[in-house]
Amino acid sequence: MKIQNLSVPSVNARAAKIVDGIVANAKALRCAVSTGEAGERRIDLGANVHGGLEAGRLLGEVCMGGFGTVALTTASGLDRWPLGVAVHSSNPVVACLASQYAGWTITEEASGFFALGSGPARALSRVETLYQELGYVDHHGSGALVIEGDKAPPASVATNVASACGIRPSDLTILYAPTGSLAGTVQIAARVLEVALHKAHALHFPLHNIVDGYGVAPLAPPVPDFVKAMGRTNDAIIYGGRIQLFVNGSDDEAKKLADNLPSSTSSAYGKPFAETFAEVNGDFYKIDPMLFSPALVTVSNLDTGRSFHAGHRAPEIVDASFS
Amino acid sequence: MKIQNLSVPSVNARAAKIVDGIVANAKALRCAVSTGEAGERRIDLGANVHGGLEAGRLLGEVCMGGFGTVALTTASGLDRWPLGVAVHSSNPVVACLASQYAGWTITEEASGFFALGSGPARALSRVETLYQELGYVDHHGSGALVIEGDKAPPASVATNVASACGIRPSDLTILYAPTGSLAGTVQIAARVLEVALHKAHALHFPLHNIVDGYGVAPLAPPVPDFVKAMGRTNDAIIYGGRIQLFVNGSDDEAKKLADNLPSSTSSAYGKPFAETFAEVNGDFYKIDPMLFSPALVTVSNLDTGRSFHAGHRAPEIVDASFS
Amino acid sequence: MKIQNLSVPSVNARAAKIVDGIVANAKALRCAVSTGEAGERRIDLGANVHGGLEAGRLLGEVCMGGFGTVALTTASGLDRWPLGVAVHSSNPVVACLASQYAGWTITEEASGFFALGSGPARALSRVETLYQELGYVDHHGSGALVIEGDKAPPASVATNVASACGIRPSDLTILYAPTGSLAGTVQIAARVLEVALHKAHALHFPLHNIVDGYGVAPLAPPVPDFVKAMGRTNDAIIYGGRIQLFVNGSDDEAKKLADNLPSSTSSAYGKPFAETFAEVNGDFYKIDPMLFSPALVTVSNLDTGRSFHAGHRAPEIVDASFS
Repeated sequence: MKIQNLSVPSVNARAAKIVDGIVANAKALRCAVSTGEAGERRIDLGANVHGGLEAGRLLGEVCMGGFGTVALTTASGLDRWPLGVAVHSSNPVVACLASQYAGWTITEEASGFFALGSGPARALSRVETLYQELGYVDHHGSGALVIEGDKAPPASVATNVASACGIRPSDLTILYAPTGSLAGTVQIAARVLEVALHKAHALHFPLHNIVDGYGVAPLAPPVPDFVKAMGRTNDAIIYGGRIQLFVNGSDDEAKKLADNLPSSTSSAYGKPFAETFAEVNGDFYKIDPMLFSPALVTVSNLDTGRSFHAGHRAPEIVDASFS
Repeated sequence: MKIQNLSVPSVNARAAKIVDGIVANAKALRCAVSTGEAGERRIDLGANVHGGLEAGRLLGEVCMGGFGTVALTTASGLDRWPLGVAVHSSNPVVACLASQYAGWTITEEASGFFALGSGPARALSRVETLYQELGYVDHHGSGALVIEGDKAPPASVATNVASACGIRPSDLTILYAPTGSLAGTVQIAARVLEVALHKAHALHFPLHNIVDGYGVAPLAPPVPDFVKAMGRTNDAIIYGGRIQLFVNGSDDEAKKLADNLPSSTSSAYGKPFAETFAEVNGDFYKIDPMLFSPALVTVSNLDTGRSFHAGHRAPEIVDASFS
Repeated sequence: MKIQNLSVPSVNARAAKIVDGIVANAKALRCAVSTGEAGERRIDLGANVHGGLEAGRLLGEVCMGGFGTVALTTASGLDRWPLGVAVHSSNPVVACLASQYAGWTITEEASGFFALGSGPARALSRVETLYQELGYVDHHGSGALVIEGDKAPPASVATNVASACGIRPSDLTILYAPTGSLAGTVQIAARVLEVALHKAHALHFPLHNIVDGYGVAPLAPPVPDFVKAMGRTNDAIIYGGRIQLFVNGSDDEAKKLADNLPSSTSSAYGKPFAETFAEVNGDFYKIDPMLFSPALVTVSNLDTGRSFHAGHRAPEIVDASFS
């Protein structure tokens, strides 16, 4: 069996090249670059600026720590919403879990700031227990943190984030775009592979057996209302997303993963996400976490050559959500 | 509301990088680079050389002033002609109207030269009234002019073009490819988004409310006969093209735009373009200008989240045209 | 008529840039770079390392001598296996026949080593009679040889290969990946255009009349068993591949090419390749060579504008093969 070596290059070093490209190209990308009070660099990709689909595409690649590609496609797989986002990584565990997953809860009582941080800076701070399992460490001298929201954190939070990352605030870049912005909707669609990885982890599938993966999801039309935007961007994945994973291990494990991975395995499956969210009175944590996964799944076992398909897309729910 | 700032970087500066790439790679792209009598640089991408699809893809990106991407796709949306061109711009007004649109009528009585110039050089000369509305100015020291035709203009015309652009002839590059060449057919298909922008303007939709856009059209098989080539390349867009625009404003405006944008709103809709052209005895200006637009349209309102779909593809007319 | 000039830049020079990129990025691509006993550079993209789809994509571009693009697509054209490989070249004769084709039989009695070499190094050694017809010569000072297999050749073979190429062993790079690896399955799918070129040559279609081309094939799920892997990767092309060629010449020639090009013209057509292979007891040369071609073909005549379609995909055979 081939040994998967996670001592790959730094996600922050690779992301830094993409971030530098955004900064150099900020006017054309209609992003705003500024320096925060703590000395940190802030990049607004869609809050007080237009940003755009291309800004979102690059933001998605920053989220993946430079270990994946995010591309617009005209073949999302849905007739009515053909514009989609295709994502691929030949290092899906590093790209999606060690970097892209929005797993860093960043809060400050004084300012009331709250955000779920994603992107490569997480691999510097490693405040999440997930990193103990991943065994991935990054010691790069600069970091990039991505926030799905309409503002950068206050100076005190930026200072704390930098400190947790072991870098100076001036070496920290915080990129942000609201859920309902063009850039936001692209970077969330680009999570179609990440949610599959995260659910695979929740299902106790051994992460070191996940070798390669790709995914595609339709692009949710941006909508300013946060709950609606959250609903649509989730529905794009839950009812419109498709992924293929290439794994090692036994056929039993691969089949079990495929069977349990699609969103349709969740009791909460079957209606636009915004409705589900309303039913639990906005208490996210009352929603079955198994809902957050792609609609249609193929798991291909590299050790035996067998593939297992499960799930299906639900274009009518995507239509109801996007319209 | 977010303010759209058109003071973006220079379309000629961005295009120059792509042009330099074509020159550096001319042999592999099968393009011919030469110096005209006025000192201008000429690039033949399909008249006396093979050129090719890749040359056309780059030509399309030059046309858009480096503010858009042109990609070959195997998912045009038409079963029989899957090879297509996908175009995207996060600055569609600048890319398509301030640069790509073939709006500069270049004529010279003495030589009988006539061409519709397109590409970023237009933003230097600004001889078109359209620029008063666009408010876009470029002051770059070099320019790129694109001509859909089988020859570069004579020295006197090149000198006049450079003069109108405020640059020396030696700082002007003229790129040309016939309508019926491989490069020509790609660069015209890449106009699927531009014709939508142009028609939106004709319909008095406020241009500053158009934020982002993409389009896709099948690739018309090249044909040497000019009228047939013009017919096919138009049909690719009129009967096979699809676009999505992301706009600001009211839902009424967005819906009205969607309803009026598709080619099927034109009285001239319904038969291959070459037939329509023959019926008016080749007098282009007798054809309803509302015909020149994509077949299928989605307009998504960023301010409300609503999307409006209109039009449909007509694969049987595309087949009749392409065969 | 436009003259096709094959004195294009060096396939090895162009491939060297891609190879250097693989080396610089080897850890992220999960490839292993080492120096062989003869001083040659070896790159393992899937034998004792994971490699991945991205490694395979780059390997495909190395095979084409930097004269083509290989891209992952989510629109293979097959509903059940949408992940595919799209390949394009504006120099298909050079890219596919002078470089990509696995035409160099490399054997050594002492070690028992046997491989079919592909990639740009072939154009240095020119040991194949095919090169007399192609008229393509490369004199670059370094070479890249691609081997579909699980190991690099022994030092004696590497020395002989370098010698045949007229370069020092230290200027030779040997890249290898097994048929059943992720990288292998991508680089073979990327041959969908090459097999069409090769069959066109076998059908005596004049190669200098082939101007441009693209192709797409579904990605066969990797399988360790060599015969199964060979079967699947062939079936991806034979029953799932689609290409379009742009040619010069008469309509009679173009139509004849289209009619004879699809795999369905072969008497061996109709069942998964592994079955056919078993029926001839593994004697490859007993299989009708006309079988090795794409399922669905469009030939577009640039001189007349006519296109000829022939063949069809067989998704049920692809399913039987891939499952």
